Amino acid sequence: MTHPAPRITVVADPSDPRLDDVRDLKHSDNRPDLPGGKGYVIAEGPLVAGRLVESRFPLRCVVGFERRVEEFAAEHGRALCGVPLYAVTREVLAEAAGFDMHRGLLAVADRAPERTVTSLIDDLSHPHTLTTLIVLEGVGDHENIGAIFRNAAGMGVDGVLLGAGTADPLYRRSVRVSMGHVLRTPFARMEGTPTTWQRSLDQLREAGFHIVALTPAPDAVHLRDAVTFTSPDNPTPQPYDRVAFLVGAEGPGLTEHAMRACDVRAQIPMAPGTDSLNVATSAAIAFYERNR
Amino acid sequence: MTHPAPRITVVADPSDPRLDDVRDLKHSDNRPDLPGGKGYVIAEGPLVAGRLVESRFPLRCVVGFERRVEEFAAEHGRALCGVPLYAVTREVLAEAAGFDMHRGLLAVADRAPERTVTSLIDDLSHPHTLTTLIVLEGVGDHENIGAIFRNAAGMGVDGVLLGAGTADPLYRRSVRVSMGHVLRTPFARMEGTPTTWQRSLDQLREAGFHIVALTPAPDAVHLRDAVTFTSPDNPTPQPYDRVAFLVGAEGPGLTEHAMRACDVRAQIPMAPGTDSLNVATSAAIAFYERNR
Repeated sequence: MTHPAPRITVVADPSDPRLDDVRDLKHSDNRPDLPGGKGYVIAEGPLVAGRLVESRFPLRCVVGFERRVEEFAAEHGRALCGVPLYAVTREVLAEAAGFDMHRGLLAVADRAPERTVTSLIDDLSHPHTLTTLIVLEGVGDHENIGAIFRNAAGMGVDGVLLGAGTADPLYRRSVRVSMGHVLRTPFARMEGTPTTWQRSLDQLREAGFHIVALTPAPDAVHLRDAVTFTSPDNPTPQPYDRVAFLVGAEGPGLTEHAMRACDVRAQIPMAPGTDSLNVATSAAIAFYERNR
Repeated sequence: MTHPAPRITVVADPSDPRLDDVRDLKHSDNRPDLPGGKGYVIAEGPLVAGRLVESRFPLRCVVGFERRVEEFAAEHGRALCGVPLYAVTREVLAEAAGFDMHRGLLAVADRAPERTVTSLIDDLSHPHTLTTLIVLEGVGDHENIGAIFRNAAGMGVDGVLLGAGTADPLYRRSVRVSMGHVLRTPFARMEGTPTTWQRSLDQLREAGFHIVALTPAPDAVHLRDAVTFTSPDNPTPQPYDRVAFLVGAEGPGLTEHAMRACDVRAQIPMAPGTDSLNVATSAAIAFYERNR
């Protein structure tokens, strides 16, 4: 099946309003003029831009070097129908965006309404599949959030819940580090303040989740033993059907409020006298153990 | 026990030659005037600088904001005996180093002779302890190398071997991302070209190492089954005494030459249609499985 050749518009003036969506990208997440005060969703490079095209976020435009836009249009054909495609030189893009963008391709989308925790839980897979969620508390670093989504997607995690103090997964740097998986893996923000949001964890427990706090505390149980149970009838460890891992920021870790709201505290054994692992690395190990 | 108050010298002129060790840090790794053409070892921030003080690398100087240098001197006392301590303002440091250094403390050391693979293996722990090494091929990204050292140290790995195409662990960014563990965890560079270095793996095999290649290839065995063995007498899986994991760069992965030099190919199970994990994250999971 053939498509009509896409219409690509050359834009030669960096101040052209058609480039406003990609203007000053270093500060583009702060947009008081847009609903919610947040910027558009920006995907950099063909791989991540392709994931944005396939996502629930409504595309606004594609901007890039002419050859890259042509290739991208050829690959995504019909999905780009009606979306403005702008070809620019490296210099024009650098001046509009505010820095040199060697990947040479950007796709921009509007934000979509955020999901609720209830709808995310309701949509989870049927009871006979192992289901895994991760809940973040105070993870303010955009690269760590991106890496957590990348690891979650890679290891089949079903969703990400954002507790208090957790930054925006749709920020440009999170999108990039996640390799676009923030656009695919379901997430929802839990309501409440830093000392009250943990009550929302009850909703997970009511939905049958076994809630596991990851902590470097040496009195916590081994991660291996936190995700399985034995019974008098069956001494072989069985995995819980539904597990939610709870992780906190590097350094402070989880709050006591959060720890208390969990069913078990689990640790990844570490060498004496070393630092705790990066939060996204700890999460990846938890997902691996869960799948093991 | 009290120490004499350290003598801290205030340097007010960014062009003062006493700041030459921290000059133009963005390009400081390329130093044709120094042996080997590499720059000094630079540690940023009190935690990593403290690890440099405790390391085998000969300290040259400490430079930082006055209060930070005073605190650092008070903490490390005698270990800084004879080491020049320079106090500078934020502006002076930014102009000398070439960028704003908000951590406000730098320690600089000379490089030390690199260890040989033979001496690293000879120094490994006695036969009744589980011993683990990691071998890197083509890992050119300094942040990934730093993260691998951080994870290796955190999980008790005994050493890091650098195959062809692997960048310098002592580069400033690697030191920082490793949280100073490149200064503590033994490493050695394997000799040879991109197609011959793999022969050095024989040296590991002769020393009793079971060599495990990490790969996303779906026909590889589960990581769990690659680090243990069973025997007719004992069907319970037992860990190998000595394991060396081999990892390649993200994207290209290990060369066929390297794969063929290994005893087994192991995979971390991934969700269909996703990307492979970051190399440092894969390594952390392998270390976790090894310790499990």
